[in-house]
Amino acid sequence: MGLKSFIEVHPDSHFPIQNLPFGIFKPEPASDPRPGVAIGDHVLDLAAISSAGLFDGPVLKSSDCFIQPNLNKFLGLGRPAWKEARATIQKLLSSTEPALRDNASLRQKALVPMDKVEMLVPIAIGDYTDFFSSMHHAKNCGTIFRGPENPIPANWFHLPIAYHGRASSIVISGTDIVRPRGQGHPAGNSPPYFGPSQKLDFELEMAAVVGPGNELGKPIDVNEAADHIFGVVLMNDWSARDIQAWEYVPLGPFLGKSFGTTVSPWIVTLDALEPFVCDAPKQNPPPLPYLAETISKNYDISLEVRIKPAGEEHGHVVTKSNFKHLYWTLTQQLAHHTINGCNLRPGDLLGTGTISGPEPESYGCLLELTWNGQNQLSLGGTNRKFLEDGDEVIFTGCSKGNGYNVGFGTCSGKILPSPL
Amino acid sequence: MGLKSFIEVHPDSHFPIQNLPFGIFKPEPASDPRPGVAIGDHVLDLAAISSAGLFDGPVLKSSDCFIQPNLNKFLGLGRPAWKEARATIQKLLSSTEPALRDNASLRQKALVPMDKVEMLVPIAIGDYTDFFSSMHHAKNCGTIFRGPENPIPANWFHLPIAYHGRASSIVISGTDIVRPRGQGHPAGNSPPYFGPSQKLDFELEMAAVVGPGNELGKPIDVNEAADHIFGVVLMNDWSARDIQAWEYVPLGPFLGKSFGTTVSPWIVTLDALEPFVCDAPKQNPPPLPYLAETISKNYDISLEVRIKPAGEEHGHVVTKSNFKHLYWTLTQQLAHHTINGCNLRPGDLLGTGTISGPEPESYGCLLELTWNGQNQLSLGGTNRKFLEDGDEVIFTGCSKGNGYNVGFGTCSGKILPSPL
Ligand SMILES: [Ca+2]
Ligand SMILES: [Ca+2]
Ligand SMILES: [Mg+2]
Ligand SMILES: [Mg+2]
Ligand code: NI
Repeated sequence: MGLKSFIEVHPDSHFPIQNLPFGIFKPEPASDPRPGVAIGDHVLDLAAISSAGLFDGPVLKSSDCFIQPNLNKFLGLGRPAWKEARATIQKLLSSTEPALRDNASLRQKALVPMDKVEMLVPIAIGDYTDFFSSMHHAKNCGTIFRGPENPIPANWFHLPIAYHGRASSIVISGTDIVRPRGQGHPAGNSPPYFGPSQKLDFELEMAAVVGPGNELGKPIDVNEAADHIFGVVLMNDWSARDIQAWEYVPLGPFLGKSFGTTVSPWIVTLDALEPFVCDAPKQNPPPLPYLAETISKNYDISLEVRIKPAGEEHGHVVTKSNFKHLYWTLTQQLAHHTINGCNLRPGDLLGTGTISGPEPESYGCLLELTWNGQNQLSLGGTNRKFLEDGDEVIFTGCSKGNGYNVGFGTCSGKILPSPL
Repeated sequence: MGLKSFIEVHPDSHFPIQNLPFGIFKPEPASDPRPGVAIGDHVLDLAAISSAGLFDGPVLKSSDCFIQPNLNKFLGLGRPAWKEARATIQKLLSSTEPALRDNASLRQKALVPMDKVEMLVPIAIGDYTDFFSSMHHAKNCGTIFRGPENPIPANWFHLPIAYHGRASSIVISGTDIVRPRGQGHPAGNSPPYFGPSQKLDFELEMAAVVGPGNELGKPIDVNEAADHIFGVVLMNDWSARDIQAWEYVPLGPFLGKSFGTTVSPWIVTLDALEPFVCDAPKQNPPPLPYLAETISKNYDISLEVRIKPAGEEHGHVVTKSNFKHLYWTLTQQLAHHTINGCNLRPGDLLGTGTISGPEPESYGCLLELTWNGQNQLSLGGTNRKFLEDGDEVIFTGCSKGNGYNVGFGTCSGKILPSPL
């Protein structure tokens, strides 16, 4: 590993000096939100570092991108700014650099214990898109809803299918989720019923955070798409399967999804994930030229979901998956999104879709894990078909390096009962 | 009519003193964007009126809601502010009120000829939703795509179907639209093709502009929904039918829509439309209680679409429809949108869906008018199945009062060829 911080970082920590993910935090309840970077169990206050004049590289020297309530301005500056920020922060935090290490008053101001801060959604999200990029998820859902003959729609292998999601209801990890009410429909000709969702589910996803956007009418080339992606977060696309199943023909998911989507607070950069690059699956049929990339990258990121029923101490692991199972890459998703001229903006969020692996223990939602409620899932002493009020769902994600982790922390939310 | 302005307004004008729609404009290319109200062929500069201290009612007296680059702050203030603003402006512009009429220097500053100003999208749109509320449109599309047996999906009569749209690509009337490229699919088992859309279409829609929003998890009652709607604009939901047909299973329209959506610059308020209220269609089956409203209102707004081929002087009328044909009301759309707890925010846009009437001459898009290209539509000397490069599509909307109009002006856009 080599690189070491003067701040003590536990070997199990998700946030060593090799990671340096970006977020937005409030050091005190009354403080203004500001950018920060996670280091061990501390947050480095980038507004304080910036005000102290320590961002002295050519791109960031005279920028106010860290004196902002969200990361959008920094994201819009693009890869040169990101590289410079990472290099500056990595140097400042290293064990051999005295500028911060030996400045007690700046350390006091700029390093805040993580358990004292409030984390916020780190970006102003202009548009949120959710893809459908796991073949295993597509196959399982298709089999459940449309039967085992041709479970995967004909278009699926030709384009990364996606839908526009709801931006307003994206919330930060730790926010409670109110069980949605809505219409469902029993089989046959009976009328729809109305009430609290009876099939509340999570979806294990990750999401790319867009950096520089593109002008309306000007697509982004797939081989340049990586320069438009700042990093990745964990995302729980909470889903009400009964509402979704009744409403989604012919225009897709709407109220079955829009009641809440939870993101993790720390955006792990593609630079930090570079050591964990792996080959993307071979695509057959070969993609059309606008989706055919010179280098097709996935990332080896272990993902885990726990459910913690009300009153219990610990969560029970219900699935283990990995980002590398995705069929369509992040760069293909982004290039496809813009091929029609659609403009992306800094801070846009591109969900991967549920990340299911090939084995039943790696399925990314309860719909698949219980096969639409046909089976029970054991949580030690109790069982689940779908989520119950009081259940807390906790995602973690982590890439294991040689003696260090590049992790995402957690992405969690607890289910509250529907209003009466 | 009675009410009269000291500003001369032609009897055919869409913008007499009875209307007073709100927009955002720049008086000069280098000016800051600011709120304005249309009066005849002038724009009243609300920033100038506000700075002159003429908004002297209790709600607006000390508000900076008109010193803003968009209307969101004003929209968020709700109906008391909207009523007060309308009363103040109507009084200021009336023939009997001297405050503005007899103040030459203020008139000079605050009344700008409409043909000199640049209009902008009047709201920062956090989320854009498109409904599917015309039964005739649903029936025609269903017949074209899925055949004449059960063309309308079973859920359609139970809930206002909708999908999340793309907010970033919403543009103001007059903006050119680049023909999107994308994948289409011929019949049978052949592979998809890629190229400029061969079935580019318009969709004649209107859209409600949301005022005060709601907290996540707290639905809005259908009988209170009108207080959350500020007004209405014309909207062209440009659609690439070949891209849409291939991509939309199972998650709905995506790139077939997201390349551009055009809105008209003037938001006509529900207060101005009140004289044109008419009964909404009787709904059978009766809606579930959360959608059953005490008073179900539609509006009598005549709509017309012209296509003007490149090089021609005038457009040819291709359809005449009316807002009153919608099956689901604006208030039902809004209540449904929030019933799962989804939060709306000021400035959100809720499209009605294509407004088709019962007769073939009132269909709201070329897909229906040419029955997916099976028939030709005559534009005088030339014919159309779908839109050609250089075509300009012009929507108008107007309610006819007793001696005056409450109109929407136009919503237009011209098709540019795809990039190579
Ligand atoms: Ca999803
Ligand atoms: Ca539409
Ligand atoms: Mg969601
Ligand atoms: Mg559109
Ligand atoms: Ni400390």
